Amino acid sequence: MSIKTFLIGSPIESVKEKHERVSKFTGLAVFSSDALSSVAYATEEILIVLVLAGSGMIHFSIPISIGITTLIAIVAISYFQTIHEYPSGGGAYIVAKDNLGDNAGLAAGSALLIDYVLTVSVSISSGVAAVTSALPFLHDYTVVLCVASLLIITVINLRGVKESGKIFSLPTYAFIFAIFVLIGFGSMRLSSIPHIEHPKVVQTYSSVMMIFIVMRAFASGCTAMTGIEAVSNGIRAFRPPESRNAGITLTWMAVILGIMFMGISLLTDRFHIMPSETETILSQLAKAIFAEGFFYYFIQGTTFLILILAANTSFADFPRLSSIMAQDGFLPRQLANRGDKLVFSNGVIILSVVSAVLMVAFSGDTHELIPLYAVGVFLSFTLSQSGMVMHWRKNKGKGWVKHLIINATGAATTAVVSVVIAGTKFIHGAWMVIIAIPIIMLITKKISRHYKSVSRQLSIDNAEPEVEYVHHSVIIPISGLQMAVLNAIKYAKAISDDVSAVYVCLDPAVTMKLKIQWEKYGMGVPLVILESPFRSIVEPLMDYIDDVRNSYQKGVITVVLPEFVPMKWWHHLLHNQTAIFIKGIILFKQGVVSTSVPLHLRD
Amino acid sequence: MSIKTFLIGSPIESVKEKHERVSKFTGLAVFSSDALSSVAYATEEILIVLVLAGSGMIHFSIPISIGITTLIAIVAISYFQTIHEYPSGGGAYIVAKDNLGDNAGLAAGSALLIDYVLTVSVSISSGVAAVTSALPFLHDYTVVLCVASLLIITVINLRGVKESGKIFSLPTYAFIFAIFVLIGFGSMRLSSIPHIEHPKVVQTYSSVMMIFIVMRAFASGCTAMTGIEAVSNGIRAFRPPESRNAGITLTWMAVILGIMFMGISLLTDRFHIMPSETETILSQLAKAIFAEGFFYYFIQGTTFLILILAANTSFADFPRLSSIMAQDGFLPRQLANRGDKLVFSNGVIILSVVSAVLMVAFSGDTHELIPLYAVGVFLSFTLSQSGMVMHWRKNKGKGWVKHLIINATGAATTAVVSVVIAGTKFIHGAWMVIIAIPIIMLITKKISRHYKSVSRQLSIDNAEPEVEYVHHSVIIPISGLQMAVLNAIKYAKAISDDVSAVYVCLDPAVTMKLKIQWEKYGMGVPLVILESPFRSIVEPLMDYIDDVRNSYQKGVITVVLPEFVPMKWWHHLLHNQTAIFIKGIILFKQGVVSTSVPLHLRD
Repeated sequence: MSIKTFLIGSPIESVKEKHERVSKFTGLAVFSSDALSSVAYATEEILIVLVLAGSGMIHFSIPISIGITTLIAIVAISYFQTIHEYPSGGGAYIVAKDNLGDNAGLAAGSALLIDYVLTVSVSISSGVAAVTSALPFLHDYTVVLCVASLLIITVINLRGVKESGKIFSLPTYAFIFAIFVLIGFGSMRLSSIPHIEHPKVVQTYSSVMMIFIVMRAFASGCTAMTGIEAVSNGIRAFRPPESRNAGITLTWMAVILGIMFMGISLLTDRFHIMPSETETILSQLAKAIFAEGFFYYFIQGTTFLILILAANTSFADFPRLSSIMAQDGFLPRQLANRGDKLVFSNGVIILSVVSAVLMVAFSGDTHELIPLYAVGVFLSFTLSQSGMVMHWRKNKGKGWVKHLIINATGAATTAVVSVVIAGTKFIHGAWMVIIAIPIIMLITKKISRHYKSVSRQLSIDNAEPEVEYVHHSVIIPISGLQMAVLNAIKYAKAISDDVSAVYVCLDPAVTMKLKIQWEKYGMGVPLVILESPFRSIVEPLMDYIDDVRNSYQKGVITVVLPEFVPMKWWHHLLHNQTAIFIKGIILFKQGVVSTSVPLHLRD
Repeated sequence: MSIKTFLIGSPIESVKEKHERVSKFTGLAVFSSDALSSVAYATEEILIVLVLAGSGMIHFSIPISIGITTLIAIVAISYFQTIHEYPSGGGAYIVAKDNLGDNAGLAAGSALLIDYVLTVSVSISSGVAAVTSALPFLHDYTVVLCVASLLIITVINLRGVKESGKIFSLPTYAFIFAIFVLIGFGSMRLSSIPHIEHPKVVQTYSSVMMIFIVMRAFASGCTAMTGIEAVSNGIRAFRPPESRNAGITLTWMAVILGIMFMGISLLTDRFHIMPSETETILSQLAKAIFAEGFFYYFIQGTTFLILILAANTSFADFPRLSSIMAQDGFLPRQLANRGDKLVFSNGVIILSVVSAVLMVAFSGDTHELIPLYAVGVFLSFTLSQSGMVMHWRKNKGKGWVKHLIINATGAATTAVVSVVIAGTKFIHGAWMVIIAIPIIMLITKKISRHYKSVSRQLSIDNAEPEVEYVHHSVIIPISGLQMAVLNAIKYAKAISDDVSAVYVCLDPAVTMKLKIQWEKYGMGVPLVILESPFRSIVEPLMDYIDDVRNSYQKGVITVVLPEFVPMKWWHHLLHNQTAIFIKGIILFKQGVVSTSVPLHLRD
């Protein structure tokens, strides 16, 4: 208990639950860290694919970046509409479930849950890469740094720190400032860079192969778009008019994201920067522009911080989504409850454990995790936009055709991108996600079926109680005659007139002695002796209970277990845990109730 | 259950427990595999120490072997006397405890338990070395082969195979035959070996250092003596006259052991065989004499088999000794019971797990394990012989002075050897055993104190029952109104007139609804509503129980928990396990009884 209190702090009262409302300025900081931070790795992921294919392919990075920026615009406009139609929060799970039914909702929900896990893993490993780029001697400790960062985030979230705008504003705006200064200074210094003609594409690839490589690079770059839906989840956190403010914030976020991403891609191209095993592209670019001065470290530091913030947003999103899904009966009920600190603690812990496993399995290598990342994101985009299309068809309203066309464009575009990502990244890891989503869906449906069945069976309008109390007999299993047994006999006589004690005979001599003692101390309760040829205590006892139960058509049996409770935990190891076995088996017997009558030891 | 049955077989009835009596011929096979098999590694362990010190030291191996053979004679004569004085079995634990008190007995017992573990580890790894010497391509799989052999032995022992004389006779006598043929043929071929003068000892060591090296080599060779006490543990297995037959068997065993050990040491010296990383000395010797023909493989095969048998004897000895110590209250009671197959299963499993850990930790390397081995053996020899000295002093009898002198010689000699082994092998691993023995003793004494205290507290002659049944009230904690609750109310009304239901309020609206429902379905039982500012269910409930308990000076409270029992194990994961928490806490409350009233789900 004290370790928990030290780490997590003392509990918070329910009445303290309230909602902080944020301005557009703070809202941008709170909801955009995930999306904006992805510029730290998106350009690099494009280049890695192209460089592997040969230096002749590198000049494709610019048209690919332009394509992704266009995609950002399309998706942002599409989500802008969702924000106005779902003012109470329009996550993909809700929108898809509302408009396309449970299956689509569960697909989107499963994709998002996977996505939040990957956001944590990718953001932390990328943040650690920013640190090890600046401080290369830390490179060997990548995995340790990743797990340590994750642990700190986990503990902070279990403590239930408010999503305070102040904490988020500083690093987010510092990062935006840093990247804009980088782009500005970089552009000014461009003239001094010798202009090298890109080598012409040597036709070593067939055109089909080239298209495939470009599409794969495009798929990798699409990680720039993760987190763009964050604003639509958090509309209610904005000051009124909520939807309007959220919409404006989304627009600003998309514009800033587009500028930063295009700027970094362009400069990387013009400064001839190539991916490296030990240093990120952003670090190389910052060094090329500022050398290793203060501002270089400022860029690396803010990059690390915003990536950690991005991981942190998943610690709000994952537990919230899983609690919504649990309330709908699709996930274990334990995920629906707030813990001591008003936080959905179970969700936080699950997210942390799964992310840690991923980071360790992939050695904290961002590039290895990326192929898993974008599939889920784009699947949820597609389902959410498709849901909006259905929404317009059903609800119509003013100018609904225009709205429908916009969302349909979004849905179609993201659907195509989903297929591109799944196809080009399949063997690199996307297959894991493509397998995991239907598995999670299947599990959620099984869970839902179980909860529905339980609630039907427990409903008081439905059935008769299973036991009739025409006859109540009490059985006391004993292993000898001692204080705990006397205690149990007294209790048994207090609750029924039909009490008997049962002893399993292992050694006839011992049994004989017990019978004589019983005459004196047994309080008139009959003692039944059972034979046990195989030295088992439990089996003859259960057979006897079944016999007694069958002798009364409508009765109930209470098995009163005399137990003694030792003082120290390790004392339990020194005693046969027969009582626990017996209770476990009795639990499954119809019409049998088990009762523990404890005697407390003092030493 | 079915995996267990497949591996272990179906249970055996208690009445099938009987004792096979063996002849001297079979008895020698049954009880000597541990002692005789040690010639497979003892000579090698001497040479390894000497070779490391320099080739000038090697000629000391012959005087050291003579010393050890003398020691075998002394210890055998000493144990010969024990056999006649303890005809029902005179293990070191019993003899030391009887004559020197609990502490000496526990020291001997702890030393023996450690020893049995090491017998398993050393014998198996040495047996595997015999195999990998003959089939070098298996050398990389040493650890795997060790663990696989151990698993097979464990399963066989859990199945409860009788210590059948037939199984033991063949490999033991085959091994004796093989070694005698080896020694015979080797002696005949000696004349054809060119006689190389051993190099004179170059005085690179001080004489103190030289003595230390010789003592260390002697200490390593003393592993030849492990298992020599086996006959004295199993006297009752011999046909009458038991003691006489056991004594004769012991004599034969000592003679055969002495001849085989001296023979191998002498031949190794004359054939100029040196220790190697990948081949045992015995394998090299057999190759030198027989080349790689059939008889070479016969020797390696019988060596492997007798070493596996040696490991197997510990699987009888360890569980038997720990069951004796458990019956005396020094080890957990669970070790005293025979399992389904009349075997002390818990002891077998513990021995297997600890040996496996040792073999893996030491990579199945016999030489690394040896320094841990002999300390415990010689400590138990010393305690057992000292016990016999006390025995003669107390009991006197015909010719007791002569007997006392013999045992005193044994005790003094083995005491000196114990000190030599502990001193010269301390830093190589003996320290682990020297630390472990007092730790195990301490644990056994703590366990004994606990059992005594429990039996005092539970004794019916001692105290008053802790609860007086002046008043009996029943509390039903509920989380809503459903069938399981109705079931529990009916049961509660059957056992007491003072029944109340308790509900912890988390949401006032839900509570309001429940109150209205309760009017209709509550069967007149009052409903108590508890507030919970921190959303905890358990704490307010416990406070309420304490309040009720304090309001009656002499009463008992039964907490009736409405539970529903799902059909499948994984369904449990989907429900809050609050009932289990509540039961766990109630167990420690004086005067409170907990009862589970289950409702069985059908789907």
